Parts: sequence; C-alpha cells; structure tokens
Amino acid sequence: MPERTRPTALARTILLLAVLAAATSPGFTARAQDPLAAWNDGPTKQAITQFVRQVTDPSNASSVKPEERVATIDNDGTLWCEKPIYTQVAFVFQRVGALAPMHPEWKTQQPFQAILERDQAAIQKFGAAQLFQLIGATSAGMTEEQFAALAREWLAAAKHPRFGVPYTQLTYPPMVELLAYLRANGFKTYIVTGGEADFVRAFASGSYGVPPEQVMGTSLRTEFQEAGTSGSNLRLPALFFNGDGPGKPANIALHVGRRPILAAGNSDGDIQMLEYNQRDGRPYLNLLVHHDDAVREYAYDTGTEKALTLAAQRKWTVVSMKQDFRRVFASN
Amino acid sequence: MPERTRPTALARTILLLAVLAAATSPGFTARAQDPLAAWNDGPTKQAITQFVRQVTDPSNASSVKPEERVATIDNDGTLWCEKPIYTQVAFVFQRVGALAPMHPEWKTQQPFQAILERDQAAIQKFGAAQLFQLIGATSAGMTEEQFAALAREWLAAAKHPRFGVPYTQLTYPPMVELLAYLRANGFKTYIVTGGEADFVRAFASGSYGVPPEQVMGTSLRTEFQEAGTSGSNLRLPALFFNGDGPGKPANIALHVGRRPILAAGNSDGDIQMLEYNQRDGRPYLNLLVHHDDAVREYAYDTGTEKALTLAAQRKWTVVSMKQDFRRVFASN
Repeated sequence: MPERTRPTALARTILLLAVLAAATSPGFTARAQDPLAAWNDGPTKQAITQFVRQVTDPSNASSVKPEERVATIDNDGTLWCEKPIYTQVAFVFQRVGALAPMHPEWKTQQPFQAILERDQAAIQKFGAAQLFQLIGATSAGMTEEQFAALAREWLAAAKHPRFGVPYTQLTYPPMVELLAYLRANGFKTYIVTGGEADFVRAFASGSYGVPPEQVMGTSLRTEFQEAGTSGSNLRLPALFFNGDGPGKPANIALHVGRRPILAAGNSDGDIQMLEYNQRDGRPYLNLLVHHDDAVREYAYDTGTEKALTLAAQRKWTVVSMKQDFRRVFASN
Repeated sequence: MPERTRPTALARTILLLAVLAAATSPGFTARAQDPLAAWNDGPTKQAITQFVRQVTDPSNASSVKPEERVATIDNDGTLWCEKPIYTQVAFVFQRVGALAPMHPEWKTQQPFQAILERDQAAIQKFGAAQLFQLIGATSAGMTEEQFAALAREWLAAAKHPRFGVPYTQLTYPPMVELLAYLRANGFKTYIVTGGEADFVRAFASGSYGVPPEQVMGTSLRTEFQEAGTSGSNLRLPALFFNGDGPGKPANIALHVGRRPILAAGNSDGDIQMLEYNQRDGRPYLNLLVHHDDAVREYAYDTGTEKALTLAAQRKWTVVSMKQDFRRVFASN
C-alpha cells in the first residue's frame, strides 16, 4: 500500500465510529433484526407495517403526531390465551376453594356452590354478574397492594390445564412484538380489557411492557379508609364499571381522552372499540385476532361471530393465528 | 506564544465542543436558569428541591425509580385561581343563559331559575349535585369532541370578573414551573381535579404541559352511540363519578394504578389524596397551597380549615402564596 493512502490512526478511529453509529441506528437494527419476526410474511404483517410507515412518515399527508399515536389492545384472546376459561376465572375459582372453609354458607349458595361442586353446566351459564360477585366476595376489604400481591402469587404458581405452564407463558409473541414495535414507532400502547384492570396490571408490565397507568378495564367499587396519617382504597364486593363492549370506548375516553388510531381485539366485546377507532378522513387500523389454530392453540368462533361478519364488511384486518403467527406461544 | 503550545485547529474544535457540551448539560442549565424562578427562596422552595434531589439521586438509599415518580396535583386553587367561583361554574352559567330561550321551563325550575335571576343567595347554596345537574343539562348528547370544542371556545372568549383576562391567564407560574421541574426530573405529572376531567383537558395540555391521558376528575355518564361504521360516547345528564375528596385516591388507583410520591392540593377536598400519598418508610412530599394574598389574588381559609390543621400536625409543606410565590400570575 503506498504511503499516502495508508489510513492514519485517526482515520481508522473515525471509520470505526461511523460503522458503530450505522450499526446502532434504527434502520440498521430493523434490517438486521425483524421487529415482527414472530409473524409470517403476508398481507396481515404487510398491513401493519404499511400503516405504521404511513402514520410515522412526516412527509406523508396523513402522518399522525406522536401524541396522537394511541393504540388500544384487548387482553383475553388478543394478547394471551383465554381458553378453556378466562385466566381470572381460574384465579377466582381457586380463591373460592381456598376461602370455602371460612364460608360454610357457600355450600348451598350460588354461584359458590357450583364452583365447589365443579358443576360445569351451572358454571357455563355464569355471566359478568356472577363473575364479579365472585371476584368481589373473594377479595373484598383488600387494599390495592394486597390484591396485587395475591394475584402475582397465584400467577407464579398456577398452571394452564392443557399446556401445563404458567399462564404468563401463554402470551402471544407476535402480539407482544406488535406492542414493542408500536412503541418503537412513537405509539403509546394501552390495554383495554373486559376483565379486571387490577388483575391485568399484576403482570402487564412484565409480560407486555405496559405500565399500570396504561391498563384499563372492569373495576370494583372501592372505599377510602384512613389508617393513622395514611389511607388506602379498600375493595368492595360491588361492580363499579363493566369495561367490556361499549365500556371499552367509554374507558378509552375516561382514561386517554382521545381516540386511538390502532385497535385490536378478538371478540364481539371489542366491536365498539373498533368502531370508536374507525373514523373517515383519518388513518386507522383495526385488527381482529381469529382463533383458527386448534393444533397450536384453540379454534373457535363462538362469541366472535358478529365481529367476524363486520370485519368482512368493513375491511378490518383479520389476523389468522394459523397463517399469520409464526409462533403462537414463546415455547413454540 | 511559542510555536509548540499554539492550539491546532483540531484542539480548538475539541475545546469548542467541550464548552458546548458543558453549556448544554443539565447542571449548567440549572445554574444559569433557575427552573423555579417564580418561587421566592425560602424553606418551601428548599423542601421541594431537596425532595426532588433525594428521590432522583441513585446513590441515595431512598431514591425512587423513574416509573414510580408519580406526582398528583389538584387543579382549582392549586394550579389556577378558583375565586370568586370555579371556572367551570362560570362556563356552565353562561351555557344556561345561552340555552335558556330553548328551555322556557327553566324560568321556574331550580337550579336554572336561580342562575337566570342571578339569585346569589340560592347560587351560594349549590352543591355538587346542582353543579353536575347543570353541567349535564347544558351538554347532554354531545360527543367528547363537541364538548371539548365548546369548552375551548368559551375559554378563549370569557374573562375573569376581577382581573379582566381570560381564565387561562390566571394559572400560577410557580406551580406550572413545578410541573415542568418535576417532569425534567423524570416524574409523570397528573392532574387530579374535583372538577370535570373533560373540561380541564380542554386547556391542560396548553396551560400545564399535561396531556389528556394524565388528567382525571369528576365524570359524567356516557352512552356509546353507533353512527354508520363509527361511533361516539355521548354525554348523559347524570354523574358517573365524583372525583373530589375520597374520589381523588380512588381516581389515582383507577387511572395510575400506583401511589404518588408527591401530591399538591389547596382544600379539604384534597385531604384524602394527601393521606394516600403519605406512607411511612418511603419518601413523599405533600404540598398545601394556602391562599393568603388578598392583594395579588385572594385570601381565604373557608373550605380548607381541616387541611390546614392536618398540615400543621403532619408536617405537610404549606405553600404561602404571599411569601413563596414571587409571581402569582403570568402578568405580575
């Protein structure tokens, strides 16, 4: 190498720095490492990345300011497995069993009796009223901190009846990736659950990277009780707010104060949230997760018939777990 | 200057970069420009800066992780002037007048009649029930976007009866600075109002730098109404949740899902929030704004007697507007 073209120590350092800068830039990372690697390539993945590019590209006429990039995502059946029963139902059934010795009257009192006798026919008929009666009865009088500790303790120990792993291992990697991908693109990601917000908060931060202040859902009434110079909100055995169905847009208005531009759900209880997201003259993306994979998870349309019909009519993006999810759970 | 010590172009560039780096570092900015310049020096300002240093210094045993740096601040009387009447009350009175021609029945129906006849004795006796009846009656059926537009329109036009300026010019610069100072130190700042959240959201972003998702308060019931493929939450003339007093810690649990470490209020309606913030074995700061400046603002203890007594007993930091506020409004 002729003397005049040999790189000096300074030039080599500058080159090294330039390479390092390129390697750590978002563009390089995106190419080297697909942020949606748990998705199969196809129209669904394309619809997501195309929408995110559209709203984040400042040169695009329909780009959306970061503070308005609100994503609202359902939990049960959208972010984690909801079969054979909702996870919080499994939690509350265990609580009924654990507390039964202190409540002899439950032996002849519904809905407790059905659980203690494992009366599946009666259990299948439970609605929201029974469920929240059970949640209230098994956690009334607790502070928020006590309930959170109890939920975490149960989640650490309980196992799914079919898959034999803790419920928190049954979140869907493609959807967890989607949350992270949206946040990396300036979105604020919210969980809007029909289940109890305080139950989801017990694991949402660790499992989804969503802090408690971005989780909303069904809530119990509470009563503030002073204790010396401090005080706590004690749980009451009464429903404050049903966060399912029309409760979802109401909760988004209450908690966020602006409409989302991306919403994802999986059942008829998510229809109003998707309608709230859908407005002419502005960009939006509606995702409907379809459980069509009996081998890796479950295949069912019950409770989601109306949403599937509307999705076809309104061009919502249907996510096929069978075709679009490269992985359904972290373990596969 | 001898040849060997004359700075080279490279050395001069490095020196310039070092100076620029120092000039833009947080430490330099803090010295050059006091982030709490609208506060007078004294024990109150010192209590605030000392607390923030304590919880943000990672080498301190009682430092607090950024995600747990939650500050919850009352609005009326804490962030802006609440006399002679709450600003939203002035708004709703104007609405009653504007809508009266369409409601001849209001002439003989309370609480409307009292407003139309300017019956101060009757108006003084109004409680939360009357106020929220008025809010509901004058905005029922509106979508969230319609109500926000109406509130902004009124705020842009209305003037304070004594100071003759728009209400949004009657925010307190020391408190607005405090919000920014907390955010610069990794806090998330929330407004926890006894007034209506959606009214405060109409100006909180512009006036306080607090986005709608960090404003909670009293709320009306809503009803989701589908319109074609979309839908909106329509306001109903009924109270959903009273966000004052014990409603403040309940709202914080509902919206944030964790306790604050700094809380600020000015009246008996803030006591439970301050108690919720106060817990042994962890750092916290409770601020109580005391209206003792009849010249620059108002001097009153009515409605704050119990809070002042507790502040003395429990060593809450009382903020004297007269002594601690260098400026009370942006204009002085």
